[in-house]
Amino acid sequence: MPPEAERQLTELETIQVIRESLEGQPREGVVLGPGDDAAIFSFSSEDVVLTIDAMFEGIHFSLDTYDMADVGYKAMASSISDIAAMGGQPACALLSFSFGAAPTRSQVRGLMSGAIEMAGEAHCPIVGGDVTRSACGLSVTVAVAGLPNPAQTVRRSGAQPGDVIGVTGTIGDSAAGLFILKSGSDALRSKYPALVEAHLRPRPQITAGQLLAEAGVTALEDVSDGLAMDLTHICHESRTGCEVLAENVPLSEGAVALGREAMIDPLQWAMAGGEDYQLVFTASPGRFDAAVGSLTLHGVRAARVGTIGPLGSGITSVLADGSRNDMEGTGYDHFL
Amino acid sequence: MPPEAERQLTELETIQVIRESLEGQPREGVVLGPGDDAAIFSFSSEDVVLTIDAMFEGIHFSLDTYDMADVGYKAMASSISDIAAMGGQPACALLSFSFGAAPTRSQVRGLMSGAIEMAGEAHCPIVGGDVTRSACGLSVTVAVAGLPNPAQTVRRSGAQPGDVIGVTGTIGDSAAGLFILKSGSDALRSKYPALVEAHLRPRPQITAGQLLAEAGVTALEDVSDGLAMDLTHICHESRTGCEVLAENVPLSEGAVALGREAMIDPLQWAMAGGEDYQLVFTASPGRFDAAVGSLTLHGVRAARVGTIGPLGSGITSVLADGSRNDMEGTGYDHFL
Repeated sequence: MPPEAERQLTELETIQVIRESLEGQPREGVVLGPGDDAAIFSFSSEDVVLTIDAMFEGIHFSLDTYDMADVGYKAMASSISDIAAMGGQPACALLSFSFGAAPTRSQVRGLMSGAIEMAGEAHCPIVGGDVTRSACGLSVTVAVAGLPNPAQTVRRSGAQPGDVIGVTGTIGDSAAGLFILKSGSDALRSKYPALVEAHLRPRPQITAGQLLAEAGVTALEDVSDGLAMDLTHICHESRTGCEVLAENVPLSEGAVALGREAMIDPLQWAMAGGEDYQLVFTASPGRFDAAVGSLTLHGVRAARVGTIGPLGSGITSVLADGSRNDMEGTGYDHFL
Repeated sequence: MPPEAERQLTELETIQVIRESLEGQPREGVVLGPGDDAAIFSFSSEDVVLTIDAMFEGIHFSLDTYDMADVGYKAMASSISDIAAMGGQPACALLSFSFGAAPTRSQVRGLMSGAIEMAGEAHCPIVGGDVTRSACGLSVTVAVAGLPNPAQTVRRSGAQPGDVIGVTGTIGDSAAGLFILKSGSDALRSKYPALVEAHLRPRPQITAGQLLAEAGVTALEDVSDGLAMDLTHICHESRTGCEVLAENVPLSEGAVALGREAMIDPLQWAMAGGEDYQLVFTASPGRFDAAVGSLTLHGVRAARVGTIGPLGSGITSVLADGSRNDMEGTGYDHFL
């Protein structure tokens, strides 16, 4: 690495490096890009889906286990996943960074490369942002604006008693990957690369969200706080209960093998982990199979994990031995 | 204060208090408000102006001198001012908070009351957000989406040699207010309440920005980094130089009196202070008077402070005694 890339930059130089990093992005819809007081984007709709999400060093990530590109990638993925969870299409993003000290060119380049990689996968150019200093190291806040789904916007509040609960992909891989990173074991890291990848580079399910909206599902959310808490959100907003059959929650072969090796029940990672950015959805029994069929046709795996019950019936997971656990209050609370 | 308001909240309770705080807001344009993965807002245009800005405890403010409502107000004002600086109309906002420890109900209520007060003044409902923990205390990041000006979007890059430079209001009051707050003097604080107010509760110049856009000004920016640095931005983006006559920079009576009392040249506050959220603009000589006339008609004071020169002519302020100062590099750089 040349010394110039490791010299600390001024704020103006940092902004210059960010602007250079953004130059190759697609221009479609961008009326005015970075460099002015604000950006202008032309949406092909007057209705716009909007979200914001923040990641802080020492809380959401550690630079011992994430490289700068991972931080940029994951911060972008987290906000884009919120748009996917409405059935929407991401359109453009704003990026706000804080650094604890003047960053180097290679740090800024790294951060931007990860953010741009994820934004590029989602066809969501970064059109503006803000850079500042903080008293606590690195943080990244990303706001994303997108287009609503033409068929319907799927809220958390639409689940009905009798609806079937489904999830995309496998759940818990991100938490299993975090377990590996925290263990500091290079052996585990090279044995289970897909789990580490699921934690550092989670992929928002944009296409799956759109297919589910088109298939008429009744509620939709991304698995960001652990399946137990995310289903609790849906039940609270929909004023329902639910019952999940734990043995039906799809776990990856890697998570199962790691769980066996580490003597941890991988279901814990699925229920209380979070940051999977897979989707959890509910659909009437008559529409559920068609919704899963549509996902399968597009190469997205989906599984039935439970059913929605009436309000007051509990928010419960049932284990293979018949024992029942309350899912409310399971999962990550930043202030507990 | 009842003890309940001082109890530390969980994340779910915090979100609940935020949602309650937001309930009385205007609903126009809000298709889907807070509580889901993302919000939906209906703009009366496909083109949307977008900006994001962050404020960190210990960098941008101290809770020794700001109360929670001031922090919320100013964070919202800072982003709204970016929309004003394009000639736009704010439409809706997203709010991302971090707390160093679980906040109390009264802290969350305070923060929200200030943010909602500013958002209300700008007719810009808060439609969504995010709350998290940080390792460094309080931070607030605000993204604002707005409507572009129908007449023109005024960029930083449109200034032409020969254009006249103007500013709205008085400049430097915010930095003078910060000087008072840092002094810890209650006597100064009660003697100069308007300066303290200018620092804690700056008012974005939304109407003035729109009037200036309609009047055909060539460049526009908010005074957020000190007049010297903000004019440097305009000159760099427009590929011009400029000359400011320092004695023409409008200072308030309060700033002049405080400067005399504290033996500080108040021009320093204007040139290198920042966070005034007044506007600096350039206009052709033929249009400048009409632009000022339009502002005056709407009760906004404006002054001529200098002229734009060709690239290479310097970015200079001229004092009353004829001495010349380079304005490039004056002002606040977060990483210096």
